[in-house]
Amino acid sequence: MRRTIDWTGGAVTIIDQTVLPAEYRVLELRTVGELVAAIQRLAVRGAPALGAAGALGVVLATRAQGDVEAEARRVAQARPTAVNLSWGVSRALAKLPEGPEAVLAEALAILDEDERINHEASRLAADVVIEHCGRRPLKLLSHCNAGHLATVAWGSALGVVWHLQARGLVESVLVDETRPLLQGARLTAWELAEAGVPYRIQPDGAAAAAMSRGLVDCVLVGADRIAANGDVANKIGTYGLAIAAKHHGIPFVVVAPSSTVDTSMPDGAGIVIEERDPGEVLAFGGTKVAPEGAEVFNPAFDVTPHELITAVVTEHGILKP
Amino acid sequence: MRRTIDWTGGAVTIIDQTVLPAEYRVLELRTVGELVAAIQRLAVRGAPALGAAGALGVVLATRAQGDVEAEARRVAQARPTAVNLSWGVSRALAKLPEGPEAVLAEALAILDEDERINHEASRLAADVVIEHCGRRPLKLLSHCNAGHLATVAWGSALGVVWHLQARGLVESVLVDETRPLLQGARLTAWELAEAGVPYRIQPDGAAAAAMSRGLVDCVLVGADRIAANGDVANKIGTYGLAIAAKHHGIPFVVVAPSSTVDTSMPDGAGIVIEERDPGEVLAFGGTKVAPEGAEVFNPAFDVTPHELITAVVTEHGILKP
Repeated sequence: MRRTIDWTGGAVTIIDQTVLPAEYRVLELRTVGELVAAIQRLAVRGAPALGAAGALGVVLATRAQGDVEAEARRVAQARPTAVNLSWGVSRALAKLPEGPEAVLAEALAILDEDERINHEASRLAADVVIEHCGRRPLKLLSHCNAGHLATVAWGSALGVVWHLQARGLVESVLVDETRPLLQGARLTAWELAEAGVPYRIQPDGAAAAAMSRGLVDCVLVGADRIAANGDVANKIGTYGLAIAAKHHGIPFVVVAPSSTVDTSMPDGAGIVIEERDPGEVLAFGGTKVAPEGAEVFNPAFDVTPHELITAVVTEHGILKP
Repeated sequence: MRRTIDWTGGAVTIIDQTVLPAEYRVLELRTVGELVAAIQRLAVRGAPALGAAGALGVVLATRAQGDVEAEARRVAQARPTAVNLSWGVSRALAKLPEGPEAVLAEALAILDEDERINHEASRLAADVVIEHCGRRPLKLLSHCNAGHLATVAWGSALGVVWHLQARGLVESVLVDETRPLLQGARLTAWELAEAGVPYRIQPDGAAAAAMSRGLVDCVLVGADRIAANGDVANKIGTYGLAIAAKHHGIPFVVVAPSSTVDTSMPDGAGIVIEERDPGEVLAFGGTKVAPEGAEVFNPAFDVTPHELITAVVTEHGILKP
């Protein structure tokens, strides 16, 4: 499978996540403006992939006329919650004094690292899952998309599924469709289908019922920002899932590269939560689903306190707050 | 507002709930077959309204050639979870020995009673809400639709909002959109807009985050079947909401006519949960949202154990298990 985000022929190339699974389309982004727009409409998304996008955004800025640092800030601020975006920008920007080729080399290093680091984090998380659930074919639950498509390659939470699958330890995966933008139904389901892993899509509201029926051995999610104390910002719905998992005594494991940890943030209370366009909730596929003039509460993320989380696993192992 | 379901000119007339809010359309159903189809595709829905539909189904059966009792059974079995459907059928059928006019009179009595009983149940529930939350403008949370459109008229859980609104005690209502069929975004939002009550629609996954942000003083839901011990079957997602409400110490109030209580069912474990068409989850407004061949977990209801419920309120007051 090609990388979700890459550098090819002088352009940032991304798998367009707004048209999957109906269509598999690769976009070439040649300007900071094009990249920022792609980030904002979630054509590229997922905290680790956004880290790569941030670094490649600086590469694009070095190739244009204009103030590279100002353009880099534009990239870093395209979305507020995922810390990886500004992390990627900062890392690439630090090489600017050495010239544009050094910036490009750093961005390409971030791409390589991302694949390696997520592979390692999810391998360690697979061990944590086995430790809590036992060595048997497991029923896993996935929210949003923390797979290949949320990273440069391989995936974080879904990476755990690939590791467990390779060891014959996956019975099936329940996929939260993940309203409003259905990254579960569209992206996670597509990845599981490609990998030949048995799965079922469910409305987000069915997750607690699935737990009470014994259909879930472990919940696996990614993260968009992790505070120093282990509180986790992730796709809206994660917090409710964590409460339900705790209620049923089901392990709840977060998997993310260490670039997602924001040590400047003592706990989750300070994390800025992006509120997105009401249109995401009020219409679907061009069909309006609510009355004219309806108002909306549409936070893109929520914060799960560390007490509800069994383990936050990065490439360095279980995070110790 | 006209009744959600009524008897007019020799036909069952219903407000078609599949096309709201885009279109307000009244359907005339003249045969048992038409009524059963309307029930199954949720053109008429909501446990109390289904009680009325059951009784009127027997009326239609008495006006056709054929075995009235067999036709009545067809109506009673159109959907498995709401106990009110078979309750309405049984009540009307008991009048069959007295002739078709007695059956019609009984059905019309059920329609009148439904409006009166839901008005009373929701009035008592409003008192329960005030007792737990205090007499102040309240932030309420609603799941699915338990309003006028789920009953003959007035509503159960949403009826509480109308009572509180009349007393100046509603600040706003958060409306769970309620996937897969969006009865919240489509029907509850429409009713609140008609009534001039401030509301915001949210993805179901946002409810727990809303609670943690102090946006919810009380959760109000209806019921499709209530076991003798107070366990409640209601729209999928209710159980997760109840767990989250408990976690945040937020009152969780169930409102339903006493015809929803099934004393033959000692607890919720025995309640049959309808699994609905995968297409409800896999496509929306004609747009496919999942890969070809995707499988689905689509239970229409879940069961909330009585321990998570602050009070189940019927027209007789708080249910004592």
